[in-house]
Amino acid sequence: MADDRRLERYAELVLKIGANLAPGQDVHITALIDHAPLARTLARAAYEAGARYVDINYTDPHLRKARIELAPEDSLEWIPPWIGHRDDHLIESKGATISITGDPNPELLSNVDPKRAGKERTNFPPSRVRVVHSEEVNWTIVPYPSPGWAEAVYGEPDVERLWGDIEKFLRLDQPDPVVAWKEHVATLEERARIMSERRFDSLHFEGPGTDLTIGLLPASRWVAASFTTKRGLKHIPNMPTEEVFTTPDYRRTEGTVRSTRPLNLGGAVVRDLEMRFEAGRAVDVKASAGRGLILGEHGQDEGAPFLGEVALVDGGSPIGQSGTTYLNTLFDENATSHIAYGSGYPHAVEGADAMTEDERHELGINKSRVHTDFMIGGPEVTVTARDRNGNRVTIIENDIWQLT
Amino acid sequence: MADDRRLERYAELVLKIGANLAPGQDVHITALIDHAPLARTLARAAYEAGARYVDINYTDPHLRKARIELAPEDSLEWIPPWIGHRDDHLIESKGATISITGDPNPELLSNVDPKRAGKERTNFPPSRVRVVHSEEVNWTIVPYPSPGWAEAVYGEPDVERLWGDIEKFLRLDQPDPVVAWKEHVATLEERARIMSERRFDSLHFEGPGTDLTIGLLPASRWVAASFTTKRGLKHIPNMPTEEVFTTPDYRRTEGTVRSTRPLNLGGAVVRDLEMRFEAGRAVDVKASAGRGLILGEHGQDEGAPFLGEVALVDGGSPIGQSGTTYLNTLFDENATSHIAYGSGYPHAVEGADAMTEDERHELGINKSRVHTDFMIGGPEVTVTARDRNGNRVTIIENDIWQLT
Repeated sequence: MADDRRLERYAELVLKIGANLAPGQDVHITALIDHAPLARTLARAAYEAGARYVDINYTDPHLRKARIELAPEDSLEWIPPWIGHRDDHLIESKGATISITGDPNPELLSNVDPKRAGKERTNFPPSRVRVVHSEEVNWTIVPYPSPGWAEAVYGEPDVERLWGDIEKFLRLDQPDPVVAWKEHVATLEERARIMSERRFDSLHFEGPGTDLTIGLLPASRWVAASFTTKRGLKHIPNMPTEEVFTTPDYRRTEGTVRSTRPLNLGGAVVRDLEMRFEAGRAVDVKASAGRGLILGEHGQDEGAPFLGEVALVDGGSPIGQSGTTYLNTLFDENATSHIAYGSGYPHAVEGADAMTEDERHELGINKSRVHTDFMIGGPEVTVTARDRNGNRVTIIENDIWQLT
Repeated sequence: MADDRRLERYAELVLKIGANLAPGQDVHITALIDHAPLARTLARAAYEAGARYVDINYTDPHLRKARIELAPEDSLEWIPPWIGHRDDHLIESKGATISITGDPNPELLSNVDPKRAGKERTNFPPSRVRVVHSEEVNWTIVPYPSPGWAEAVYGEPDVERLWGDIEKFLRLDQPDPVVAWKEHVATLEERARIMSERRFDSLHFEGPGTDLTIGLLPASRWVAASFTTKRGLKHIPNMPTEEVFTTPDYRRTEGTVRSTRPLNLGGAVVRDLEMRFEAGRAVDVKASAGRGLILGEHGQDEGAPFLGEVALVDGGSPIGQSGTTYLNTLFDENATSHIAYGSGYPHAVEGADAMTEDERHELGINKSRVHTDFMIGGPEVTVTARDRNGNRVTIIENDIWQLT
């Protein structure tokens, strides 16, 4: 009974704050079969909140593993047409979508051929990018714990401990989580407003192994916590969220960067990742594990090795303060500053909403089928910005946000 | 390890005999999330046998229950378009499909509103009927045990006992199950050949509460065990299978019938079902439980209350001999003779393959979105046939097959 109440409380927060479900909407839930208890609770709660139709798309990493290991090489990039059909229907019908994350077996794909894994694209197909870019769909990504994930994080399958962390990071430990979220979102939005006002020309990350400059667009807009659909539904794409982020000029990244956290990439862990950029492109990639996965993604299309996002998070975030690496991007990217290679977000650039894809690309917004975040911040990494007059301003130092 | 070997042996039989997978085919597996161990083993084995792409469509009765209980009334008949899209792609690409059956919670839907349950049609959508009727897809339905199913059958969650029964009924206890199946199929096909040769005009079922005449078509052909796709892949649609069956003249069913086994209809159990037919149509339906579910199905379309199938099984089948009711149509319909209201099988009528839908209906083949079998045979039910000269021939008496 305690567990049911926990799930119901969680589902309520996800529907009210994360997805901000409107009555009459269709809802697509994407979940691993291990996430069934939460997916089912969300489905019932969504119907109770007035959803018209709820679909759960259960996926199975074991199936993906079998495909990567055994399917004919020339079939790996094929994506079943009904996946795009389903996503396009979601856009047309202006539905909502909830993705549940939390890998019960983070090392499942650690021994597969990374080149073949990179080709297998059902994990995040192009139609999902269309859903995000359409701005017609209110969406959110939320975590669900499992013994396997807990074991990968703590060294023991202590799923209660992981529940505790999730409840803390999602403010479910607050008396009224919905109110706590509204306050938290306001704080992040204020940070984003200040960053946007300053119209910085570039950011600079400096720390051990890192000396990276990221050029911003004159029209780059800093975004925090929430997106709003074209018809005005404000939703929180990531729960937890601690970041303010923007879309940089994909042609203006220069220098080297060393990742400060391991990265779980579709079931395999990338460790000690380093990249060197020239004129925006990642020209050199090193890693002690999982390098091939990164190269596989970079080989996906022309835009993949260029940046599409830069995000700032200081050490004050509850996730950062926990000092723990969760081997899950939703958590780890909210513990510290990060960048993403692959597609940029048009809504993080003033005026881009009204542009064609070609115009966006011309302006400097990266275009790709992939979008992969990795973590580059921490106590030893200083983030500064240069404004349009050449003045340098400190944004994060000693893992503390400086700009007010 | 023992379990893995059991699943691999099972998967091999399903792929070789049930689906008869051809190299290069796409394979769709439909499974409940509880069936994941078998679904995963089938997926790997299918890739090892040369499949191009394997998809597992995991479904969840809890989601269906939430929809039936909570979704807006006028949305219940809506079927997501991508379901038809996926099935049509399977037909166009001449793929294979495997459905795993075995309800882990046979009473889950026993308290839902039967009228609403009848309207909710994702469980067996029309596109699945298109898959079957296309004769382009090699398909099979196979069971997977679970503690909940075992408890419903034996009164205790003895899943090992259910595994034992499944292995016996599927001849997995034989030294070479593939050879055992080939012999079994030959026996059933001989029975069907004799029935077809006699070109009976009608069948008569007589027993307690049953006095039923079913008119056959001059072109009715008796079919057993295997179907063959248009490109020549012979597959076994049901494992286990013990029946010989045909499509009757939907206009010529007369009299009363009492079901001899409970019927699990999409998660709810129908008990003590009785029907009275006039000019083919079920005009009166009684049941001590689940009557509304039957009426809900009968209300689906014009053809639903007419018969589409009559099937003969004697008591010599291993399932019949077990004396157990499995609350699963795949098992129970192979324990004893049965009839189905709803769609008829064109391939069980000479010449119907080349006809249009209208011509088939004109001839006397029933057309409907539903097809639901229920059991009417047993030791007290005698089955006779009348030939075109008016002579009466006994087919099954004292639960023993008589016609040779």
